Amino acid sequence: MLKYQHIADALEKYIEEHELQQGDKLPVLQDLMNQFGVSKSTVTKALELLETKGVIFQVRGSGIFVRRHKRKGYISLLSTKGFKKILEDFQITSKVIELDIRKPTTEAALNLNVGLDEDVYYVKRIRYIHGQSLCLEESYFNKSVITYLNNEIINESIFHYITEGLGLNVGFTDMFLHVDKLTEEEADYLGLEKGDPKLYVESIFHLTNGQPFDFSKVTYNYVQSQFFVQAVL
Amino acid sequence: MLKYQHIADALEKYIEEHELQQGDKLPVLQDLMNQFGVSKSTVTKALELLETKGVIFQVRGSGIFVRRHKRKGYISLLSTKGFKKILEDFQITSKVIELDIRKPTTEAALNLNVGLDEDVYYVKRIRYIHGQSLCLEESYFNKSVITYLNNEIINESIFHYITEGLGLNVGFTDMFLHVDKLTEEEADYLGLEKGDPKLYVESIFHLTNGQPFDFSKVTYNYVQSQFFVQAVL
Repeated sequence: MLKYQHIADALEKYIEEHELQQGDKLPVLQDLMNQFGVSKSTVTKALELLETKGVIFQVRGSGIFVRRHKRKGYISLLSTKGFKKILEDFQITSKVIELDIRKPTTEAALNLNVGLDEDVYYVKRIRYIHGQSLCLEESYFNKSVITYLNNEIINESIFHYITEGLGLNVGFTDMFLHVDKLTEEEADYLGLEKGDPKLYVESIFHLTNGQPFDFSKVTYNYVQSQFFVQAVL
Repeated sequence: MLKYQHIADALEKYIEEHELQQGDKLPVLQDLMNQFGVSKSTVTKALELLETKGVIFQVRGSGIFVRRHKRKGYISLLSTKGFKKILEDFQITSKVIELDIRKPTTEAALNLNVGLDEDVYYVKRIRYIHGQSLCLEESYFNKSVITYLNNEIINESIFHYITEGLGLNVGFTDMFLHVDKLTEEEADYLGLEKGDPKLYVESIFHLTNGQPFDFSKVTYNYVQSQFFVQAVL
């Protein structure tokens, strides 16, 4: 992690711990430079990162302000941290239904940019929030990148393992959202009725070098799931 | 618009017009500096903006690459440009059902940060895509910011009017997403059945100074709407 990322993390933690609200003013640039003992450009980069993440907004000639929404219980659609971390305030558990090495489907091969004869890890699991089903998740991992997986890793945090264990740099994600009706199989897994609404999200996770390594298809229980997105215009 | 924003726009247009694909390499920093006749820091800011917007990704020591998803017909959930612009490749029309000045609901007052006795513009409309209903949209505009609206403005682009006509600077948006079942009234407007799935999105648009000016509640026709989100991790 680079110095400006550490400073961004420290500022975000400060805002959370002190429960600062939207519109609360942060110290001026000079004070932040003194406090962290770094250059103006480092503080500026940290602030730009926090702005992109929706944590602060800057008003030219006026200052740096906290940006927080007022609603509780929403899951960030764009968080970098994986479910385990996002939902640490919630009680999240999961049940692995399938875990094996197989050949990809045509769809998975296309999205992972691998051949049909290459190996992928396939993971199918259900996530629960406060004991209620949150989503059904099917993931395909490019095995030449994610070289090893087991049940314990999956039950902990795959993203933590990928970044810390395998030392990979996760870069960006393309997400595709649809709303549709549950199939009978999906309804059974989620404890809902066939034909009930679902949010269906396909995500393609890439390394910083642009290589896709995870293609995931997630079907959410509409009763449990509410999301927020913070966009900078 | 600042210089780096112009350069970012020009690069984005270049990528679109030349139909560059994900992974295609862009000219190196020095070439971009020469081409636009600007400093390194200006090009760097332009590239950072494009990275945040999901248009490019940068690989240290390797170059600048185009980031584009392969799927057609998806609407960007985070676009800055308003529907009219996002959907210029689609055939979008809209029908205004209601337009008046009124007192806000408690919910709208809370989200717009105005008093219950202050005036808001209320707009209710249906959007159509290729002649099919896309969404039902109810918007509340803080009248002390959006001082005037009429049918013609609404049928053109409200966002164009706000930025160009009123000269306001739009800063950031908080969006809240739910999936649920259509009420009878919503189903009637969208030409669907009561109980069909819906994507329901509440958005709060803020000026760059943090003031909320538009609280919108949008109910999407699940058959017509598919969205994409490009996230930087």
